[in-house]
Amino acid sequence: MKIIIVGASGTMGKYLTTAFKKEHEIVTAASKACDIDVDITSTDSIEQMFTAAGNFDALISTAGPTFVGPWQKLNDKEFRKGVDGKMMGQINLVLIGQHFINPKGSFTLISGALTHDPQKNFANASAANGAVEGFVRAAAIELENNVRINAVSPTVIENSPQYFPFFPGEIPVTMKQLEFAFRKSVFGANTGQIIKPY
Amino acid sequence: MKIIIVGASGTMGKYLTTAFKKEHEIVTAASKACDIDVDITSTDSIEQMFTAAGNFDALISTAGPTFVGPWQKLNDKEFRKGVDGKMMGQINLVLIGQHFINPKGSFTLISGALTHDPQKNFANASAANGAVEGFVRAAAIELENNVRINAVSPTVIENSPQYFPFFPGEIPVTMKQLEFAFRKSVFGANTGQIIKPY
Repeated sequence: MKIIIVGASGTMGKYLTTAFKKEHEIVTAASKACDIDVDITSTDSIEQMFTAAGNFDALISTAGPTFVGPWQKLNDKEFRKGVDGKMMGQINLVLIGQHFINPKGSFTLISGALTHDPQKNFANASAANGAVEGFVRAAAIELENNVRINAVSPTVIENSPQYFPFFPGEIPVTMKQLEFAFRKSVFGANTGQIIKPY
Repeated sequence: MKIIIVGASGTMGKYLTTAFKKEHEIVTAASKACDIDVDITSTDSIEQMFTAAGNFDALISTAGPTFVGPWQKLNDKEFRKGVDGKMMGQINLVLIGQHFINPKGSFTLISGALTHDPQKNFANASAANGAVEGFVRAAAIELENNVRINAVSPTVIENSPQYFPFFPGEIPVTMKQLEFAFRKSVFGANTGQIIKPY
């Protein structure tokens, strides 16, 4: 299977690339240090990425820039970081990628538990996640040629301990649990699901 | 209680204005034909609205422009209608309005069942609703001075029969049910809730 991993230079993306490349053809993409450079806030850049990658069977996205910081600093300008990044960046990967994906292919986006379990400093991510999840359910009934779409929604992950202080009481998701959630989406048959790896 | 109703020229807004003005001081706002003109896609316009209205106890928003149409026509440009309208328009009403609202005041935004029950042609609304709901839960733990925030999430409403063909199998929410949901948010004590009037 040919799998494009967007956000492949990040903590999750690196792990998933290593896990899946043993058995599959992986094309890595990120803003830097990958097979293909992509800026997911630009529809032109996304289009160029798909043209360079060619037809594919699955797209995994772990790319989710959002504004993290005090509520007092949150305004329209800061909020757009998550709108243009984690939300529209990922939505545009699907709206554009549907014209390049093979029949029976799949899109797997990244969401997060903040959708339903907010934490202070992360309102931008809560909104972006909620948008991604709403979109995933809607896209599942619109995509053609049996193309599927799901989102993986972890809590804080074990390989990002710098975030632990912001998530009191959240049991970190292990990288293996995270990998299994993506496996369920990519190699299973579900669509329109929000997969929780815990 | 002094209540600002944004979107007061629309079907829901008109009904709520009539229902609440018997007992409360209502300030109506919309793009036209109300006490105050406001364009919720402009932060400057929102700021001007709050300055003109003065301090208030509750804000009700029924303002939710989104793109409705075939999936094939849905691209980044069309998607921004819901992003800048129903999503960021309402989020900015809160981010800016929090500096004008009285202690123990409340914000009540409009979401919709499409968040979890998608229908064809409405992917933009599903995403915008999901964002609003994620934001409401996050804002509830951030707002100061006991200010509350909720969203009302109806299905199709009885006074908008033009939408019935797009919502097969959905039992329309009556205007009275809708009014009761807003009453629960404005006059109750809950916060961070998605109130379903059915």
